[in-house]
Amino acid sequence: MDLTDAFAAAQGAWAHALARDLWPVARSLSGPGVRQTLQRLQQDMPDLRIEQIASGTQVFDWTVPDEWTLRRAYIEDANGRRIVDTDNTNLHVVGYSEPVDVTLSRAELDAHLYSLPDQPDAVPYVTSYYKRRWGFCLPHTLRQSLPDGPYRAVVDADLRPGVLNYGELVIPRASKREIFLSTYVCHPSMANNELSGPVVTAALARWAATQGLHHTLRVVFIPETIGSLIYLSRHLPALQETMVAGFNVTCIGDDRTYSFLPSRAGDTRADQAARHVLRHMAPDHDRYTWLDRGSDERQYCAPGVDLPVATLMRSKYGEYPEYHTSLDDLDTVVTPSGLAGGFLALARAIAAVDQDVTLQVTTLGEPQLGKRGLYPDVSVKGSAQDVRRMMNLISYCDGAHSLLDIADKIDAPVWDLHALAAPLVAQGLLRNKRSA
Amino acid sequence: MDLTDAFAAAQGAWAHALARDLWPVARSLSGPGVRQTLQRLQQDMPDLRIEQIASGTQVFDWTVPDEWTLRRAYIEDANGRRIVDTDNTNLHVVGYSEPVDVTLSRAELDAHLYSLPDQPDAVPYVTSYYKRRWGFCLPHTLRQSLPDGPYRAVVDADLRPGVLNYGELVIPRASKREIFLSTYVCHPSMANNELSGPVVTAALARWAATQGLHHTLRVVFIPETIGSLIYLSRHLPALQETMVAGFNVTCIGDDRTYSFLPSRAGDTRADQAARHVLRHMAPDHDRYTWLDRGSDERQYCAPGVDLPVATLMRSKYGEYPEYHTSLDDLDTVVTPSGLAGGFLALARAIAAVDQDVTLQVTTLGEPQLGKRGLYPDVSVKGSAQDVRRMMNLISYCDGAHSLLDIADKIDAPVWDLHALAAPLVAQGLLRNKRSA
Amino acid sequence: MDLTDAFAAAQGAWAHALARDLWPVARSLSGPGVRQTLQRLQQDMPDLRIEQIASGTQVFDWTVPDEWTLRRAYIEDANGRRIVDTDNTNLHVVGYSEPVDVTLSRAELDAHLYSLPDQPDAVPYVTSYYKRRWGFCLPHTLRQSLPDGPYRAVVDADLRPGVLNYGELVIPRASKREIFLSTYVCHPSMANNELSGPVVTAALARWAATQGLHHTLRVVFIPETIGSLIYLSRHLPALQETMVAGFNVTCIGDDRTYSFLPSRAGDTRADQAARHVLRHMAPDHDRYTWLDRGSDERQYCAPGVDLPVATLMRSKYGEYPEYHTSLDDLDTVVTPSGLAGGFLALARAIAAVDQDVTLQVTTLGEPQLGKRGLYPDVSVKGSAQDVRRMMNLISYCDGAHSLLDIADKIDAPVWDLHALAAPLVAQGLLRNKRSA
Repeated sequence: MDLTDAFAAAQGAWAHALARDLWPVARSLSGPGVRQTLQRLQQDMPDLRIEQIASGTQVFDWTVPDEWTLRRAYIEDANGRRIVDTDNTNLHVVGYSEPVDVTLSRAELDAHLYSLPDQPDAVPYVTSYYKRRWGFCLPHTLRQSLPDGPYRAVVDADLRPGVLNYGELVIPRASKREIFLSTYVCHPSMANNELSGPVVTAALARWAATQGLHHTLRVVFIPETIGSLIYLSRHLPALQETMVAGFNVTCIGDDRTYSFLPSRAGDTRADQAARHVLRHMAPDHDRYTWLDRGSDERQYCAPGVDLPVATLMRSKYGEYPEYHTSLDDLDTVVTPSGLAGGFLALARAIAAVDQDVTLQVTTLGEPQLGKRGLYPDVSVKGSAQDVRRMMNLISYCDGAHSLLDIADKIDAPVWDLHALAAPLVAQGLLRNKRSA
Repeated sequence: MDLTDAFAAAQGAWAHALARDLWPVARSLSGPGVRQTLQRLQQDMPDLRIEQIASGTQVFDWTVPDEWTLRRAYIEDANGRRIVDTDNTNLHVVGYSEPVDVTLSRAELDAHLYSLPDQPDAVPYVTSYYKRRWGFCLPHTLRQSLPDGPYRAVVDADLRPGVLNYGELVIPRASKREIFLSTYVCHPSMANNELSGPVVTAALARWAATQGLHHTLRVVFIPETIGSLIYLSRHLPALQETMVAGFNVTCIGDDRTYSFLPSRAGDTRADQAARHVLRHMAPDHDRYTWLDRGSDERQYCAPGVDLPVATLMRSKYGEYPEYHTSLDDLDTVVTPSGLAGGFLALARAIAAVDQDVTLQVTTLGEPQLGKRGLYPDVSVKGSAQDVRRMMNLISYCDGAHSLLDIADKIDAPVWDLHALAAPLVAQGLLRNKRSA
Repeated sequence: MDLTDAFAAAQGAWAHALARDLWPVARSLSGPGVRQTLQRLQQDMPDLRIEQIASGTQVFDWTVPDEWTLRRAYIEDANGRRIVDTDNTNLHVVGYSEPVDVTLSRAELDAHLYSLPDQPDAVPYVTSYYKRRWGFCLPHTLRQSLPDGPYRAVVDADLRPGVLNYGELVIPRASKREIFLSTYVCHPSMANNELSGPVVTAALARWAATQGLHHTLRVVFIPETIGSLIYLSRHLPALQETMVAGFNVTCIGDDRTYSFLPSRAGDTRADQAARHVLRHMAPDHDRYTWLDRGSDERQYCAPGVDLPVATLMRSKYGEYPEYHTSLDDLDTVVTPSGLAGGFLALARAIAAVDQDVTLQVTTLGEPQLGKRGLYPDVSVKGSAQDVRRMMNLISYCDGAHSLLDIADKIDAPVWDLHALAAPLVAQGLLRNKRSA
């Protein structure tokens, strides 16, 4: 598969440009912002289907909330000056704020304000999907500088029964067995968490569509939590039957580190592939456990759901200073090279799963590589080193270890083993166990 | 269950007072000292049954020895002065000494003397249950100061066929599955090894009797080794069928450390519970292996017996300087707080086993804690921390992990999980797998 | 079994003398040198059978090469002076050089020369079994000092269809289950790799013939790689059915370290025995993995072959400076004490496998050692230490652990456990599970 650094860099640049396009859209759990986002993604993935589900629908333990349509929200001071205004950043309004237009004192207003004393210049990201309230988010410095009121607070929005949308893309291939990608489209203007997820996922889907994958690829663009629950409520038996490996794509855009968070089971093929890729691409990556989870793996790996979904990230949610604030931007945090690295790691993990086969050597004893032009025919001290990796690969082609298993055993990148195995298969020295 | 520090402290004080009562009784493998001890314990546990077995009875590879009745033993010097006298401490006579009344030289006497050059002020504890001899134990300083004799040595005792006694207490509960406690009553006046065992076991039995235990509790007060063999010879098939976990209660009274010695199998529910409790109560506790054993686990875990019996101690036998000497006392070694700590650790281990259930979450995907008042309904940075432990618990309620398994997985004290689980069960979010 | 240090020292001296005898023989993959070597070994092992296979025979993926008969090879300078001559050392000719008698320039000659710039005084060991070429090996200093030619290069040899030989010795015993030794006889005048292998193997075979082994011993003296493939092609099903453990005997003669290289499976009885022996004889020995392999374990452990063959060495091939050069000699590298240590380690590994039994204690609970004279009958502080190892042994005689398993569990040399177990079996306290 076509996974050079240069190709990854081009994908990173493409993803970053797409993120710039999507940045100003006022995304939330539902509403026009989600639809605009999905429609923009459709331009690059025409087969993406936009699905919907009605407010009030029961989804396992949850109920699909009302649809939220924000037009504008602002706070005016006594002079009619708009001191906080969602036209500047979507983050200024608490997500799912109910409509309001009230005049109130400085003290009354304060009960509806959210700021971060430790990051006084940042606008925090706050939502209240399941309890009706309204509020504004603003820099702590601004909050502290507000004189006595009165103030007028306006949330010009609708919060009433409607629909919740998500996108689904299936790239069918020879095998009904599937690789799954899930990412979310419910975050307003933030970059690592979370525009990086949908844009890298889009790049992966476009790349995969051009590759001769063995497995069918299923990709969903959903609102976090309620979206994965909705998708599971509609597709769980099929997913359990067909999913070989899945990846939750989130926080995949900055260039500071790589991170791994396992599935609940911890030892699925998705876990193995992600761990393998990061061990070779970024040996010092950050390793988390199931106890550190906080994204849609919570649903995909819940008891009784138990899908093989692992999470390969750059800087993990909650672990970088700009997380869930206006500081998480497309300039200083998420970069083309950060997105490129995330793309490359996930593409390699997908390829590792997709191309994983169990090979068997067709001879008893070692094959004679020399007569096949695969081995130096004069034995001098040290010459054996050159073919050692090939011999190690062959020595584990016993029908009990897949290429990924072998790659872990001999501590070699599986993408190198794919290249090494090809001529051996072509020469008939190795054969696919499935076709034996 | 009622396991506050204050409750444990009260139990430690109660146990220490009981130990004071039992201190002067001349216990040995058999005889009136054992009966007096059991009768005193009956005052606090009226359901304790005192059993007996005849001398000469064959018990597996062993034979129940003759009964030993000591009245008094002493050494008189040439002036009729009693220089060593069991009226001062029971330890002065070798346990199971045969009756004797002889006059002999200093050199002849010396062959019957036992002392410790390294602990010259201590009276050592010496027994000879299975070979007939007689002897006296004394401080090394005293031994070295003895002038030439003659000396008169008197052991006023009976050593002849009789019975060997032990105590058995069963607290029946709904389940026929049992938790087992075993402790020994054959040691004369020593405190950590071994009055701490029976007095803490008595406290545990009295506490358990007031609790709504699920499991039946079986408690034995026996002479070490021969007592456990006798009990096994009479009850082994039933014990193998019903025992969920057992604890050998010994060396549980000083306040210097905690110790764990596993069963032979090493991974029984008793081992898991004891390890769990100590990891949370005393992370730096001393860890021993089966190779360090030296108490009744030798019988309970012998090949073919294989009961799930682990040993949770304070300072282990053989590992503290006062061990098996007159220095092992109720003033400097065993303290109310030492006994309280031992009581608390064992009570927690018993509760961990007794209350261990396998719960299953009743929803697919995460439950919505918010609508149940279990989750903050506004999402701000950091708010998720508050409910993380509850979510971790729920995430492992998959029907495959018991509460104790989950406590180990999420590194939380199982007693905290019991408190967390209760409202979730009450709300129907979790259900007991047994009643599913 | 008779495995004192003195006995091992005598075996080391015997093996060193045998190596001196075999040193000058011009061994290669085939030809008179191999036959002379096997005939010399027959003098010490009359039951050794010399087998042959015809050139051209197909052996799995390989073809038995032509037979090579070297008479002499040399380079003459313009003055007729023989500046390189196999009469000085066999290593001077590239193994399997085709016959040649040519006069050529200095530059033309150089294409046929092999030397080691980093070890300028050493003659390297070079072979070309499967591609026709000719060449000479010489010290780099000599090569650099050669003036302009012309030179005459003569390889007086035959390379044509014939046979390839190997030796096989079977020492039948009561059990059809076998212990296997394999060593190679294709290396010319080098000492650790590889005269140490055949001479230590000969010492082991002679020792084993005098012992009451339970298992049949099968020993092969073969050319490396092609020899093991030939042997497997003729005997694989029988070997797979009967082999309990096998050892590849190579690099077993210097006195600098011990080394272990596991089978591919890594956990066979051969691996366990070799690891056990080295852990007790040489705790700091060098530990290698399957990825470090380079000898006949490559064939014995290949997929589909999967024999339990491990390799216990002194300094491993490729890991000591004199490897595959004329510096690997019988004076500075391989010594009688080095061979003695190798003999002792392998003999202990063979004995550990041969005498491994699974014992069961015949009592429930601990046996009373006192009444059998096996335990001190007076209990004083510390007396229990003396019999602890015996009690540990008994405590694991549960029918599920063999003596070697127990030795690993209680961290005692298995040869000590054999001595401890014997009286317990004799007294009926332990019985062999096989005869239960």
